[in-house]
Amino acid sequence: MKYDHVVLLAHGSPDSIWKMPFEALQARVEKECGIGKTSLAFMELTEPTLEQVVTGLDIDHGTIAVLPIFLAVGRHLRVDVPIKIQTLVTDDLKIELLKPIGDSPLLHNAMLEIIANQLGEP
Amino acid sequence: MKYDHVVLLAHGSPDSIWKMPFEALQARVEKECGIGKTSLAFMELTEPTLEQVVTGLDIDHGTIAVLPIFLAVGRHLRVDVPIKIQTLVTDDLKIELLKPIGDSPLLHNAMLEIIANQLGEP
Repeated sequence: MKYDHVVLLAHGSPDSIWKMPFEALQARVEKECGIGKTSLAFMELTEPTLEQVVTGLDIDHGTIAVLPIFLAVGRHLRVDVPIKIQTLVTDDLKIELLKPIGDSPLLHNAMLEIIANQLGEP
Repeated sequence: MKYDHVVLLAHGSPDSIWKMPFEALQARVEKECGIGKTSLAFMELTEPTLEQVVTGLDIDHGTIAVLPIFLAVGRHLRVDVPIKIQTLVTDDLKIELLKPIGDSPLLHNAMLEIIANQLGEP
């Protein structure tokens, strides 16, 4: 893998059970994709935050990828996350903000299939 | 289709461009799934709201499906949406809250594939 660590970034919620599917996703990324060096972080309302994760990693050089588990790009990904990242990078530590999963046609195709299945259409 | 209308419900955002992928999804549901009677509604921050959509439908009997385009279940889907729905149902108009897309293994498999592709792993 071209990254020294991957942070899966989800939105966050005041509801403690909300984060469970994201924890399950992270476990599958580690197990099924063979990517051991991952963390889960949240934009707001749920901990750990991106700052907490990055500062706790004990990585002072290399490249960290931040992969947003977001359906769409809004203010968080256009403004808030880039600002947070700017405060965390150093001369030796790069942080690369990847495209959110919602940008992928694969996700939209899956959503379409799920919706068709739920509504009982072919 | 067993429903008289389908409302695709997304979260909402203060950022006006955020809703574009959901509009594209709705268009594909109508075109590719052949489900003509759909609307897009938002939980908060973006209009139209669920109330605005349902009261504007001019359907006074039958069944409306609300299909959440949410990655995970939190307070909104456990509490807020059911309360909203209770205020909108009548003796003749049922509103059925379907499972969110995030409950589907299809979505999680797609997310896993997207993440693996982005990270350059097999």
